[in-house]
Amino acid sequence: MTLPDCLRAAVDEAKTRVAALHAELPRWDLVVWTAGNVSERVRGTGGHDDLFVIKPSGVSYDELDADAMVVCDLDGKLVEGSRNPSSDTAAHGYVYRHMAEVGGVVHTHSTYAAAWSARGEEIPCVLTMMADEFGGPVPVGPFAIIGDDSIGRGIVETLSGHRSPAVLMQNHGPFTIGKTAKAAVKAAVLLEEVARAVHISRQLGEPVAIEQDAIDALYDRYQNVYGQR
Amino acid sequence: MTLPDCLRAAVDEAKTRVAALHAELPRWDLVVWTAGNVSERVRGTGGHDDLFVIKPSGVSYDELDADAMVVCDLDGKLVEGSRNPSSDTAAHGYVYRHMAEVGGVVHTHSTYAAAWSARGEEIPCVLTMMADEFGGPVPVGPFAIIGDDSIGRGIVETLSGHRSPAVLMQNHGPFTIGKTAKAAVKAAVLLEEVARAVHISRQLGEPVAIEQDAIDALYDRYQNVYGQR
Amino acid sequence: MTLPDCLRAAVDEAKTRVAALHAELPRWDLVVWTAGNVSERVRGTGGHDDLFVIKPSGVSYDELDADAMVVCDLDGKLVEGSRNPSSDTAAHGYVYRHMAEVGGVVHTHSTYAAAWSARGEEIPCVLTMMADEFGGPVPVGPFAIIGDDSIGRGIVETLSGHRSPAVLMQNHGPFTIGKTAKAAVKAAVLLEEVARAVHISRQLGEPVAIEQDAIDALYDRYQNVYGQR
Amino acid sequence: MTLPDCLRAAVDEAKTRVAALHAELPRWDLVVWTAGNVSERVRGTGGHDDLFVIKPSGVSYDELDADAMVVCDLDGKLVEGSRNPSSDTAAHGYVYRHMAEVGGVVHTHSTYAAAWSARGEEIPCVLTMMADEFGGPVPVGPFAIIGDDSIGRGIVETLSGHRSPAVLMQNHGPFTIGKTAKAAVKAAVLLEEVARAVHISRQLGEPVAIEQDAIDALYDRYQNVYGQR
Repeated sequence: MTLPDCLRAAVDEAKTRVAALHAELPRWDLVVWTAGNVSERVRGTGGHDDLFVIKPSGVSYDELDADAMVVCDLDGKLVEGSRNPSSDTAAHGYVYRHMAEVGGVVHTHSTYAAAWSARGEEIPCVLTMMADEFGGPVPVGPFAIIGDDSIGRGIVETLSGHRSPAVLMQNHGPFTIGKTAKAAVKAAVLLEEVARAVHISRQLGEPVAIEQDAIDALYDRYQNVYGQR
Repeated sequence: MTLPDCLRAAVDEAKTRVAALHAELPRWDLVVWTAGNVSERVRGTGGHDDLFVIKPSGVSYDELDADAMVVCDLDGKLVEGSRNPSSDTAAHGYVYRHMAEVGGVVHTHSTYAAAWSARGEEIPCVLTMMADEFGGPVPVGPFAIIGDDSIGRGIVETLSGHRSPAVLMQNHGPFTIGKTAKAAVKAAVLLEEVARAVHISRQLGEPVAIEQDAIDALYDRYQNVYGQR
Repeated sequence: MTLPDCLRAAVDEAKTRVAALHAELPRWDLVVWTAGNVSERVRGTGGHDDLFVIKPSGVSYDELDADAMVVCDLDGKLVEGSRNPSSDTAAHGYVYRHMAEVGGVVHTHSTYAAAWSARGEEIPCVLTMMADEFGGPVPVGPFAIIGDDSIGRGIVETLSGHRSPAVLMQNHGPFTIGKTAKAAVKAAVLLEEVARAVHISRQLGEPVAIEQDAIDALYDRYQNVYGQR
Repeated sequence: MTLPDCLRAAVDEAKTRVAALHAELPRWDLVVWTAGNVSERVRGTGGHDDLFVIKPSGVSYDELDADAMVVCDLDGKLVEGSRNPSSDTAAHGYVYRHMAEVGGVVHTHSTYAAAWSARGEEIPCVLTMMADEFGGPVPVGPFAIIGDDSIGRGIVETLSGHRSPAVLMQNHGPFTIGKTAKAAVKAAVLLEEVARAVHISRQLGEPVAIEQDAIDALYDRYQNVYGQR
């Protein structure tokens, strides 16, 4: 399979965006060494199926420019690129196949999120920043290992119909989704921050719960009013 | 409403200062992504009311130069600027309307301060650095959400007549005030440091209290002798 | 003893690699001041014995270019270089003499690994990242002090036949090994990350154990499939 | 009082060194905002008394070049410089007057050291790095506030005849001493590291003690063999 001409420009723009977004992962201390990955869906046109751009496997963050990115179809098969795609490619592809509204996926092993994941414990919603972005607690997904669809299925089953754009895969770490890759990166950054702040808060006692109607009001405002229109 | 000519120079200088001070927030690890904001009052002259300069909403710290700043009146209405003001603008304006001596306001979700906020617990004064800057414990303000005056009112009611330039708004995070925006930024930086050091100290036992007269002596000296005159 | 001509090129290349790898230690916050060291074996040819390249003792990370590196034989005797070799040279040499497959050794006092070392407690395998790289728990080696072979012997006895490329020397800190110096540096970076994440996870409860067959499957895949071939 | 000509060169060299050493404090995360200070003694010649070079009070780390440094006599009186000396100048001077072998003094509020200070608890010697540099536990000094000799006296009484170059002043933070300012900065950097590692170790149980004769052997070797001669 080769890349259809009509998707050339869209794929190149996605490569540039995804490469730049990878730089956000070390910037916000979400990854060590070559761990972590960002992908973005390129919607098909002219009868062609969707594709996605993703990081190659085991490559240093210093080398991740747009040309280093690889392109896969939604089954995770390599369409363009000289290196193996990320070993998490199957999970990204599964999410794109089953969640039509998702345009970007991020996976990290960010430390505090991983710590909650290792206990298999959801993060309670005790900060307004968390109500804003996650609309409630951050849920836990099942234990699943690489090799079949089980990681992708765990992500989709946990996040479908859920406000949270983040799931803590048990003993593994977080996956986040968004309408764009940038939104998924933002969710990954805010997830680690709330995972850290709530952890620290609970070390010395029990945080105060936020009432559900306040959570609802905060979530609604943040999704619909915050930022520039 | 447009900006009166007689305030042009003062507003431009404030924009430059406020833009530079925003760079201190990521420098001292007080913010992630686009969270956090600094404002500075521009005192009215020639019959004009006071204004304040503040950060636009949801804009990356990489883009925050002087031209990006927006200007509001004390009711939070946009006076100059092409973007929406910070979603915390109403709270800043409320503080300026009700605390005449305040020339700068800072809001962050800095991690350790947020952790104390989530428990609704004041930070006890067990470090001389804390006595110097805060003159005692850092108090907690009420739970309040965006949408009316309740955040601004909570800040003003907590800090009026209090030595501390910082309040921990419950489940939310800190607001700091100062005679200038720089002083409010300094308070935000020192707040996170003492929130962190006192948290760590309490993890392994109970810190030793500082006697009230020693707190008073430290606070008095630091406010009146420290630094360059 | 002087350096045989036939090893000149191999030694120079190793110096360049080892100098560059030293920069990874402060980059990933594994060392303070002049602590920590990386070495790489240069395999002998033409009847000459193996040598290794290592950091000089007590030199700032700012000064560690290829020319600053020193060369030792496997007994730790200086072969080339104007400065004293690292005070951990004897331990590196012992490992090279007794573990033929080892091509690189790293020693740090990275904080969280040192904290587990001070308790003499192995790190349990509760994260998939840990199963990938370490294949199970990270073991503890004996208390041993500089002056004889006891540190080197403790490393070799603990790691021989063990999946883990890392050992926590009691009250001291970690040593890691690899087929190359780069692989040993990677193990040192990932060790500190899992030491930190598992520590944080255990602060608020007991992490969920990963079943042995899942650990085996993860380890096998990561060692044989991950990355670029 | 003016600077004697015969001390001109020595003072200028000390200013350059002290300015450069101030940059190490933020580099190793030992200070926030304008907190912390380094001084170095300039030994008198030709019948002149000793002087010391120190940081001015309340000045940003970005502005601390050699010209910004100020010079004081051992009573803390300003001898050269256009700004007020550090508010900790009296404590530095007291140390130089009473400990003839001390050539450099450093004060910080580094977070983990401050946390132990707030509990008034010495740091137990459970890491070989700590035995190397501190030769045993790091002791606590008395509670004392600025305004008379009590801080300086507390430092001198605690450290005289003690192996440790660091003291944790209760509710305040650490002071470190050394034969040179660089040695005192090194002690401040290593102190924060061991304060952090031992804190973290104790969060999940009791660290293993190191036998006294092993501590003695490590301390002796590090003071006499480590580094370049």
